[in-house]
Amino acid sequence: MGGNSFGNLFRITTWGESHGEAVGVVIDGCPPGMELSEEEIQKEMDRRRPGQGLGTSSRKERDRVEILSGVFEGKTTGTPISLLVRNEDVDSSPYEEWKEVFRPGHADFTYQAKYGIRDYRGGGRASARETVGRAAAGAIAKKILAHEKISILAYTLELGGIRADKMDLDEVERNWFRCPDQQAALAMERRIKEVKLQSDTLGGIVEILVRGCPPGLGEPVFDKLEADLAKGLMSIGAIRGVEVGAGFKAAGMLGSQCNDPLGPGGFEKNDSGGILGGISNGEDILIRVAVKPIPSISMEQKTVDHSKRPVLLQIKGRHDVSAIPRINSVCEAMVAIVLVDHLLRQKAIERL
Amino acid sequence: MGGNSFGNLFRITTWGESHGEAVGVVIDGCPPGMELSEEEIQKEMDRRRPGQGLGTSSRKERDRVEILSGVFEGKTTGTPISLLVRNEDVDSSPYEEWKEVFRPGHADFTYQAKYGIRDYRGGGRASARETVGRAAAGAIAKKILAHEKISILAYTLELGGIRADKMDLDEVERNWFRCPDQQAALAMERRIKEVKLQSDTLGGIVEILVRGCPPGLGEPVFDKLEADLAKGLMSIGAIRGVEVGAGFKAAGMLGSQCNDPLGPGGFEKNDSGGILGGISNGEDILIRVAVKPIPSISMEQKTVDHSKRPVLLQIKGRHDVSAIPRINSVCEAMVAIVLVDHLLRQKAIERL
Amino acid sequence: MGGNSFGNLFRITTWGESHGEAVGVVIDGCPPGMELSEEEIQKEMDRRRPGQGLGTSSRKERDRVEILSGVFEGKTTGTPISLLVRNEDVDSSPYEEWKEVFRPGHADFTYQAKYGIRDYRGGGRASARETVGRAAAGAIAKKILAHEKISILAYTLELGGIRADKMDLDEVERNWFRCPDQQAALAMERRIKEVKLQSDTLGGIVEILVRGCPPGLGEPVFDKLEADLAKGLMSIGAIRGVEVGAGFKAAGMLGSQCNDPLGPGGFEKNDSGGILGGISNGEDILIRVAVKPIPSISMEQKTVDHSKRPVLLQIKGRHDVSAIPRINSVCEAMVAIVLVDHLLRQKAIERL
Amino acid sequence: MGGNSFGNLFRITTWGESHGEAVGVVIDGCPPGMELSEEEIQKEMDRRRPGQGLGTSSRKERDRVEILSGVFEGKTTGTPISLLVRNEDVDSSPYEEWKEVFRPGHADFTYQAKYGIRDYRGGGRASARETVGRAAAGAIAKKILAHEKISILAYTLELGGIRADKMDLDEVERNWFRCPDQQAALAMERRIKEVKLQSDTLGGIVEILVRGCPPGLGEPVFDKLEADLAKGLMSIGAIRGVEVGAGFKAAGMLGSQCNDPLGPGGFEKNDSGGILGGISNGEDILIRVAVKPIPSISMEQKTVDHSKRPVLLQIKGRHDVSAIPRINSVCEAMVAIVLVDHLLRQKAIERL
Repeated sequence: MGGNSFGNLFRITTWGESHGEAVGVVIDGCPPGMELSEEEIQKEMDRRRPGQGLGTSSRKERDRVEILSGVFEGKTTGTPISLLVRNEDVDSSPYEEWKEVFRPGHADFTYQAKYGIRDYRGGGRASARETVGRAAAGAIAKKILAHEKISILAYTLELGGIRADKMDLDEVERNWFRCPDQQAALAMERRIKEVKLQSDTLGGIVEILVRGCPPGLGEPVFDKLEADLAKGLMSIGAIRGVEVGAGFKAAGMLGSQCNDPLGPGGFEKNDSGGILGGISNGEDILIRVAVKPIPSISMEQKTVDHSKRPVLLQIKGRHDVSAIPRINSVCEAMVAIVLVDHLLRQKAIERL
Repeated sequence: MGGNSFGNLFRITTWGESHGEAVGVVIDGCPPGMELSEEEIQKEMDRRRPGQGLGTSSRKERDRVEILSGVFEGKTTGTPISLLVRNEDVDSSPYEEWKEVFRPGHADFTYQAKYGIRDYRGGGRASARETVGRAAAGAIAKKILAHEKISILAYTLELGGIRADKMDLDEVERNWFRCPDQQAALAMERRIKEVKLQSDTLGGIVEILVRGCPPGLGEPVFDKLEADLAKGLMSIGAIRGVEVGAGFKAAGMLGSQCNDPLGPGGFEKNDSGGILGGISNGEDILIRVAVKPIPSISMEQKTVDHSKRPVLLQIKGRHDVSAIPRINSVCEAMVAIVLVDHLLRQKAIERL
Repeated sequence: MGGNSFGNLFRITTWGESHGEAVGVVIDGCPPGMELSEEEIQKEMDRRRPGQGLGTSSRKERDRVEILSGVFEGKTTGTPISLLVRNEDVDSSPYEEWKEVFRPGHADFTYQAKYGIRDYRGGGRASARETVGRAAAGAIAKKILAHEKISILAYTLELGGIRADKMDLDEVERNWFRCPDQQAALAMERRIKEVKLQSDTLGGIVEILVRGCPPGLGEPVFDKLEADLAKGLMSIGAIRGVEVGAGFKAAGMLGSQCNDPLGPGGFEKNDSGGILGGISNGEDILIRVAVKPIPSISMEQKTVDHSKRPVLLQIKGRHDVSAIPRINSVCEAMVAIVLVDHLLRQKAIERL
Repeated sequence: MGGNSFGNLFRITTWGESHGEAVGVVIDGCPPGMELSEEEIQKEMDRRRPGQGLGTSSRKERDRVEILSGVFEGKTTGTPISLLVRNEDVDSSPYEEWKEVFRPGHADFTYQAKYGIRDYRGGGRASARETVGRAAAGAIAKKILAHEKISILAYTLELGGIRADKMDLDEVERNWFRCPDQQAALAMERRIKEVKLQSDTLGGIVEILVRGCPPGLGEPVFDKLEADLAKGLMSIGAIRGVEVGAGFKAAGMLGSQCNDPLGPGGFEKNDSGGILGGISNGEDILIRVAVKPIPSISMEQKTVDHSKRPVLLQIKGRHDVSAIPRINSVCEAMVAIVLVDHLLRQKAIERL
């Protein structure tokens, strides 16, 4: 109830602070008999690692994931899988200076208000580092989905105001921004460099595409598939909006435009984004999320300290210009976790 | 796990089909000793009742709510509150003709795929009538919040492409569209009439404003306040997108624009929408949702039947032109339920 | 979290007070496509009805169960099943006199301490009448189990100190005490009459036998099958102890006596009661519960009122001499609900 | 849903196998601002450590607990506390020989039936080593209870058929068996030595006493305090029965004997065991559990292997003669966890 678990039949619990001993995750409900190695999970970890290109921080996290339980002779046993990643290359000294100061856009103020105490080093529990556990659990969820021929791809639709015009999904893994439009990717690179010089940061829009999802996943009413996806994605710190299918555009459509007609071959368009009445309809699932700019900017900012005294804050240290594209793998992870959970829920009833 | 419950410490379970015997809700976790009458709940019910104006269906639901348990001598006792509303004025005959046909934009196809059986009358469980239970539970949640001086107001920001320019909250209860801009409300009325003649339907955008929320509500990580709000709102059938504070606009902002500076008097602007790191910061909470047009249009539509044979469907019967403004009270209800749940969760830890 | 729900994938929520409008239950997670009628559920209701024989109260509850949702054209649809039973033949006047007095052995004192308010009429929510909803849900659970060839039988092992010597299960449905020993049943009848004349009440021991349970049900560690059974049974008001297999006798055994050897044909004895490591092993599941005497005795009792003033209480009205055998069907219901829940949980993982 | 979590507002998740890398626990919901050190938790760990006396195995577990998160500058922060204990001094070789053989009384057969795969080394997940995490979490729960002046003491009422006659609670910490009767403790020691020579094992009865519990803890109906205690205790591998207050003795009592009269000074006796209607009444809470003999006996046993072939099994290696007294601290831990959970639940509603 402290809010550090997610999912029902496939349930993850993350723990750990940015500058504490370690971060990790316990995954309960992974089906038995599936091959699983540290290497596979590591590969997914590496996708969210910083320091791989421009735009991201140069913190040299090695992020070596260790499987502590739940796997025996290379296979899952149905018991909880505990994954651990030690925090290395951690320097808390830049945070010492501002430990009594609330950084704008961060959770400093609200953690202090809620708990009366907070680990100020690197943002503590509110750090994006918490998503290490999500990405690790997501690697396992994606593998389960792959068995069912379901795949998930997150790509950058917009970054710093630059929008992808072309939709070439093969391009996504080719450029560093995970953008399906090569030209847009080049413009994004220029924009990132420009803004970095200004000591500022950028947001954007990520789209997540699920292919191969069978009809029938999702529980009607409160645990609608899009409701659980919205919760999972909104629980990622930087995300401020979620939409499915036509999303906010649907608000301006007529019913005759928005409804997807059905023909003998299936749905003839997909403005519903693959979900009707909270249940997957067999079409591609399409979700978009709004990512806000990273709040750690290095220019001077107005704020206050614990005693409400005005302070001019200037954050030092290594920081990304944008949560994109690192956040893309976290989006994939959350979508994968929701889908596995609903897959297991559907298995429970469909074959009694 | 069938997905018909919502909340943790304040937990609601709705049940009932559109043309079944009744619809209802069980509320578990309402604090004891609070005055509560059927009249109060009825008032909230009446806000979502159709047939009150143009744009909405003429089904004459009387929707008399009955308190069956949990209240003794006019006060809540801490035991579950069971609320029942009989389904009256129900005519299932228009649905007979199309009982083997999947209505586009509806959950017919997916319920059939998931369960292999469905109550086709009036959309069965997938009908908006399910929200009667939400609105009733919301009435109780709002009363609890009122004790804590927290208020919730949902209003229409956009309908059929017409957007409110002015933001006069006193105006909201004055016009039938719950629009804070009187001029826009008049234009909305014209638009509704126009579209009704075309046998078509409209969507829009609703904004929900929470005033008086103290800092500290929301659990970090997965049960962030905005994550639970997004789930609660996305679980309403017609909603296709949710955003908090600056929302999708944040994607195009610089960090220096998006961060809300703090001064001795508090936050100096509110692009965060009152939530930082998943926890309320004491500012107004601001959420917007995208409402799709009602899928029941009376013009001819292409679809298929259970045997995948093409059918030209023409839906008869009484239907609204837009889910707005009826959906506004359901939005208020879901937000209220989430807030009460987090209020109770916060009480549990803060005063040990 | 108010504690009025039970189960995970098969989840019941009961509501209602003894002398309120009605009692009822919502069942979420019933698989779709199963035939279900009010008559079937009614039959189970009737088994727990009072006034059927000596020993039980003469309250003439007709207990007509009404299915309000979740069933369409005689079949379950996978949506929540709401069951309602109106409270009839209710006379609250005997409770008026003692409304400020704590009846010994009842929950009056603790409800007042917890909530600061209580519906004193007939025990309110703490009344055995709450189990109407359990028995109704149990009827559905048993039907699901019957599809899987699993059966449950609860019988009276001991009543008022008289113990069954013979174990003739065919006898159980033949005598009013549900005792597998005809001679013991006659002695129980004499004992009941005797104690009734003394204005006193009796307890006993009920054994529950599950036949046909496949191996593999139960989740290890916290949701062990016996742990969930213990919780389900201990949640019945009158039950003060639960044991599985050899139970408390195991405390005095040697390991070499207690272990069940395995042969090519299976387990060679069953001191484990059909559960090893929290998971069913395919043998009969055997559980025993201790039922305390009914606290409503008509002789004078020492107690206090809300102001802690001493009172000599003499309870009037209709009361059973023993919760046995009415409680037997509630025991069957709880065991059935636990087994269906674990059956669905097992389906979720076993066939991915 | 894999069953490796327990509790609601105070929620623990254990993980790890006996001969895997490590075992551990994540505690979510610990209130912030409480001092907490590894040393304090270590002290509780040491109480359940084997090799401290006769009767228990000589495995030299050092069981060094490591706090990986949730504590900052010596105080809890409200974020999840992750505790890790590496598995040291592990020798899996004795298990190699029997890896395809089902040990009687163990979970080998049922894990194989459920999952189709199992870590056979040291019992894998079904090992008593899983309780390391429970004991560690229990240390934290007890500290929270101490703040509220609630204490828990588990002691040995019976071991190998020898029953404590005297009830001298000061004696409990003085003798190795945690027996409140010094003479009985000496007889227990003789019995243990005798049975050890016979290569056999012993069970017994543990009583748990809670002092200082305020009235009002426990949710009525399904989450009754005794129901949650029964589940928590029954989820400990060796426990086969649970009773509260008079327990099974209540089955033979008259109502007039069993009811606890109330006087101006409170309850005049305590056959209810401190719980009425599922809610604590302010008296001492008294629970007894039946502990079966340890199934790992070193004499020859009849069993089968994975192919159902008969095998004569002779288990080697280090094993305890009885789970008592090591299990006592695990019983205390589970009771503490249940009480903290209900304490937080009660806080949530009582002061709105």
